[in-house]
Amino acid sequence: MKIETYKVRVQTEGYGDIHDLTPEGQANVKSGGVKNGQATFFVIGSTAGLTTVEYEPGLVQDLKDFFERLAPQDQYYHHEETWHDGNGFSHVRASLLKPSLTVPIVDHELVLGTWQQVVLIDFDNRPRKREVLLQVMGI
Amino acid sequence: MKIETYKVRVQTEGYGDIHDLTPEGQANVKSGGVKNGQATFFVIGSTAGLTTVEYEPGLVQDLKDFFERLAPQDQYYHHEETWHDGNGFSHVRASLLKPSLTVPIVDHELVLGTWQQVVLIDFDNRPRKREVLLQVMGI
Amino acid sequence: MKIETYKVRVQTEGYGDIHDLTPEGQANVKSGGVKNGQATFFVIGSTAGLTTVEYEPGLVQDLKDFFERLAPQDQYYHHEETWHDGNGFSHVRASLLKPSLTVPIVDHELVLGTWQQVVLIDFDNRPRKREVLLQVMGI
Repeated sequence: MKIETYKVRVQTEGYGDIHDLTPEGQANVKSGGVKNGQATFFVIGSTAGLTTVEYEPGLVQDLKDFFERLAPQDQYYHHEETWHDGNGFSHVRASLLKPSLTVPIVDHELVLGTWQQVVLIDFDNRPRKREVLLQVMGI
Repeated sequence: MKIETYKVRVQTEGYGDIHDLTPEGQANVKSGGVKNGQATFFVIGSTAGLTTVEYEPGLVQDLKDFFERLAPQDQYYHHEETWHDGNGFSHVRASLLKPSLTVPIVDHELVLGTWQQVVLIDFDNRPRKREVLLQVMGI
Repeated sequence: MKIETYKVRVQTEGYGDIHDLTPEGQANVKSGGVKNGQATFFVIGSTAGLTTVEYEPGLVQDLKDFFERLAPQDQYYHHEETWHDGNGFSHVRASLLKPSLTVPIVDHELVLGTWQQVVLIDFDNRPRKREVLLQVMGI
């Protein structure tokens, strides 16, 4: 059994900025030593999350709009009393979406649909340098 | 260490149609070669998701109603500008719920509560033939 | 390859009660035999979920408020017709948040941000004794 840990670094703009991690993820899986197993993506930090989406400009905007309706930025958050950094909405959205995503690997490939990309959504209220761990486990 | 990959095929009706994957999942885990480890369910495609629920008709309806309130079908989605296929709401709901679910295996069984079933929710706006990968890893 | 399964027991108050599982999780991972791999937390039952959050009192309150807006307790749920136990809102919230969370382990530590804790949220409408499985897999 092999375990490989990669660091995927992403410079984001925050405010629901969405980045496609699929090309770098697939490249790591293809060149790595695991033929069958699973890949776990995990974003370090509590104001970003991971999921899959058909990565096209319309849906990128739809997801931003959706999270803004769900947990509006201009609403009052008690988090403000602790840090006064104005990103309560970012934390709530990130906890809902969660920082982890596991994708099966079959024959040296992440098994995804044609229109299904692995994405990082950064909910913070400022640009961030993000580190996503990609951990590959299998045989 | 062993890895087994099963394909669970489901014919859905779309529109929040919910299918219980537990019986087929448990059967595969019981007859397979992994005694302790984990099972990762992953639905291929970007308009469906996986979770657990007490699978009874009331909650099945409640979940449909809930997702309709959360991301209404009749709202405008920018996804429409790209494909004109009317399923922006399906993509947004699926990205929120996510395509992946990992359940521990102890002693040849998925460890679930009595009232906790693994379900596929198909959010698309038409019937679909879905393929859910069930990947079992362990010893 | 090693697999270790721990049971983390938590007495909750229900109603969105949030518990930090990080100290017990880290302690198990540090003293266990897996140096690199992953930890899957899984809560048994269909009225609780797992995620990460910056565990501070403001955000704990914000998450409670958020889930109350998302799936209000005093709304009608069809689940009531089945069991008459008043916790339809608990089930819907738990299915949305999901019972599973996977965190990479690097060098005998759960890889988390400084302000990122693994938490159990109990959505039920009464105090519960919860069992969270922590399954560690790796080398």
